[in-house]
Amino acid sequence: MNPLKVSVCEANKEINRIQLAILTWGNASQVDRELGVFAIKPSGVAYKDLTPDMIPLISLETGKKVEGDLNPSSDTPTHWHLYRAFHEVGGIVHTHSPHATAWSQARMEIPCLGTTHADSFYGPIPCTRPLTAEEIQSDYELNTGKVIAEHFIRSGLNPLEVPGVLVSAHAPFTWGKNAMDAVTNAQILEEVARMAISTRTLNPEGPVAEPYLIEKHYTRKHGKDATYGQPQQEKQS
Amino acid sequence: MNPLKVSVCEANKEINRIQLAILTWGNASQVDRELGVFAIKPSGVAYKDLTPDMIPLISLETGKKVEGDLNPSSDTPTHWHLYRAFHEVGGIVHTHSPHATAWSQARMEIPCLGTTHADSFYGPIPCTRPLTAEEIQSDYELNTGKVIAEHFIRSGLNPLEVPGVLVSAHAPFTWGKNAMDAVTNAQILEEVARMAISTRTLNPEGPVAEPYLIEKHYTRKHGKDATYGQPQQEKQS
Amino acid sequence: MNPLKVSVCEANKEINRIQLAILTWGNASQVDRELGVFAIKPSGVAYKDLTPDMIPLISLETGKKVEGDLNPSSDTPTHWHLYRAFHEVGGIVHTHSPHATAWSQARMEIPCLGTTHADSFYGPIPCTRPLTAEEIQSDYELNTGKVIAEHFIRSGLNPLEVPGVLVSAHAPFTWGKNAMDAVTNAQILEEVARMAISTRTLNPEGPVAEPYLIEKHYTRKHGKDATYGQPQQEKQS
Amino acid sequence: MNPLKVSVCEANKEINRIQLAILTWGNASQVDRELGVFAIKPSGVAYKDLTPDMIPLISLETGKKVEGDLNPSSDTPTHWHLYRAFHEVGGIVHTHSPHATAWSQARMEIPCLGTTHADSFYGPIPCTRPLTAEEIQSDYELNTGKVIAEHFIRSGLNPLEVPGVLVSAHAPFTWGKNAMDAVTNAQILEEVARMAISTRTLNPEGPVAEPYLIEKHYTRKHGKDATYGQPQQEKQS
Repeated sequence: MNPLKVSVCEANKEINRIQLAILTWGNASQVDRELGVFAIKPSGVAYKDLTPDMIPLISLETGKKVEGDLNPSSDTPTHWHLYRAFHEVGGIVHTHSPHATAWSQARMEIPCLGTTHADSFYGPIPCTRPLTAEEIQSDYELNTGKVIAEHFIRSGLNPLEVPGVLVSAHAPFTWGKNAMDAVTNAQILEEVARMAISTRTLNPEGPVAEPYLIEKHYTRKHGKDATYGQPQQEKQS
Repeated sequence: MNPLKVSVCEANKEINRIQLAILTWGNASQVDRELGVFAIKPSGVAYKDLTPDMIPLISLETGKKVEGDLNPSSDTPTHWHLYRAFHEVGGIVHTHSPHATAWSQARMEIPCLGTTHADSFYGPIPCTRPLTAEEIQSDYELNTGKVIAEHFIRSGLNPLEVPGVLVSAHAPFTWGKNAMDAVTNAQILEEVARMAISTRTLNPEGPVAEPYLIEKHYTRKHGKDATYGQPQQEKQS
Repeated sequence: MNPLKVSVCEANKEINRIQLAILTWGNASQVDRELGVFAIKPSGVAYKDLTPDMIPLISLETGKKVEGDLNPSSDTPTHWHLYRAFHEVGGIVHTHSPHATAWSQARMEIPCLGTTHADSFYGPIPCTRPLTAEEIQSDYELNTGKVIAEHFIRSGLNPLEVPGVLVSAHAPFTWGKNAMDAVTNAQILEEVARMAISTRTLNPEGPVAEPYLIEKHYTRKHGKDATYGQPQQEKQS
Repeated sequence: MNPLKVSVCEANKEINRIQLAILTWGNASQVDRELGVFAIKPSGVAYKDLTPDMIPLISLETGKKVEGDLNPSSDTPTHWHLYRAFHEVGGIVHTHSPHATAWSQARMEIPCLGTTHADSFYGPIPCTRPLTAEEIQSDYELNTGKVIAEHFIRSGLNPLEVPGVLVSAHAPFTWGKNAMDAVTNAQILEEVARMAISTRTLNPEGPVAEPYLIEKHYTRKHGKDATYGQPQQEKQS
């Protein structure tokens, strides 16, 4: 079986297994840039029923399905645009995990309040601007990707350092080196979002983490000077 | 075994399995309009002990039990009235799921704060007026159904587009094309209610979702132009 | 094996199974008034290790152990006093379940905010006054029972209608017709406490349930005119 | 197999089993003061993959690894310093459990609001001062241990009576007589932190537990006059 489809199938099941999505409220994809295709969850299929052969393949060039019987996720154009805008991203995940979605609905970025956050996201987790009526009424899913990419470009954010975003009034997208890594970032985002709600409940005006604390924690786990984990394995995020 | 009883038995067990009700705090029913009966959970029976043969049948015309040894749910007159008021509804569920019930107890409608909500409920999830002393002291359960139906009629709400309601100081009712679909709507309502509490905690005065965003998300999944899911299957809500 | 010990062993395991207590943070007892003894959890024993033969028996007259190798729960004098003060109570449970304990720590009664509460507790769930230094320094556990009983007597509350209490700065006690029924009331109290925190978060000054709504729901399930459940079974609470 | 490694392996798995850490967000260690070594989780290894032979040993004198193929946890210097500063501590645990971490991020000590807290922590659970830029940029993990020890010394706190701390903007550390006992204290801290958030939500300015109540509950379970548990077993915390 196509290893890309196997990876995407497993990543989608993992979204449900670790309770980032009930029903069909999340999807994962992974790209093979050499082959010029990405694999993504089919639309509306229950996680438990998903098998690798059901996973459609989408052309990275055209955004159109090139293989598979089932319709791809309705969010496919968002994934497509993000793969084209963020060249080093290998996997993308969308969920409606409850605490991250609450921040999206509050239309607020998640401030970096501590080391749990800084270990994986180098600074606040941004929230996009709302899409306009025009952007929603036509090519909505593609425009969602464009608004995300626009936010990163205008803010000078590196998507590898900030591997996720909150779409205003919608829900989070995360990414990583592959689909399963993007799932891990979705899990981290949800846990960070949960802690941040409690933190703000206790201390609504409290300080954010100091820049040197963020720097230390992020670089312990990421980049060429990372010291976390084992030398013979890839660094874990 | 009567397929209506099998469906209702399964839907009631599902309420407990997905943690929408502890103890016996929830009931599901389903109607067969051709036969003029609906099946509903018997009163006070633990979900784990429930079998299809225990499910009573109620006449859609009289509201009286026409088959079965056990007493039907004490909420039977509410279900009965809703089946008569909402002609396209095939299944009804009542739970005391914790976050939806909190909104009922706060006597507040759940504002449509994002796409998770708009994917399944086309606008706010309403909260009824409180029942009067008279309505409570006599025919309480029937009057609960009347107050729900009154709210939808006066507000011009379509019960297919807003498949659930909060009864003031009480708890939610949801409905759908059959009992299991109503359970799914109860699950969605609980998750939306949970997210909305966190959203309001973060941003008490924040904006609700724009009408064009609600329109886009609702019509992606519902109605003749729905694009979600697979063409050969029925649309999932 | 002594059926009283079996019932108490099962009720204690249930406390842990339904997540009302982690570690050894809860205990259940049951009285046999004809024999003049009650059985209670031994102190500091993990729920998973508990067997009926480990359960000590306590004299209802003296409060002293009359059978068993292990020390009884340190809360035994509280149970003892409550069995003597509340003559119709057959089982008692103490837990530190998180949401009920939060109300105890806030030193606030739980207002009756809706039907979920009124189905099982006929009015607010009271919070005792704090114990004095003298009451704590000598015969603390006995005095805890005395302060609970004092509250019910002074307030004119019927312990069968309000089957639980919050001890100020401590945690809840519940009771019922036997140990397992008291566990069920502890479960209901925890769920009601959880919903009430969310309700107050949404609407801090919102109204409590109307007296006629409380009356209707409580008497649907309790007393000679109860209509809930099946005629051939005992009414469930 | 070395029993120290077995104990530390089991304690680390327990951290994950009781949901104090997702991914690799926690570590446990245990010291053998006669042998002058402590054992600690290897860095970045998933709990499910952990076996006793993977556990490195660290010199209590030098803080350097003396046995094992894998890199020790990046938090090893914190553990090392705490074992040297707190001579009666036998095991240490670090987690990012969500509610305790929220208090760390809020940079607030957890007030002693009730008996659940006082049963295990004799007074508030302190929050350290923030580390300075210098302390973070060089020898960060060692300085984390120093700031914790400094707090206990300056405040005159006994680490056996207050078996845990919140590091400002970071997360909790707990300790105990061995690694598993430190895990239990991490579990208690998380539950106490959770209850305290709800308590403060209900009653933001409410009173803390009276000194005589704290004294009674702590000394029921700890010290030479403890009455909790069974005489033939060690007192449980």
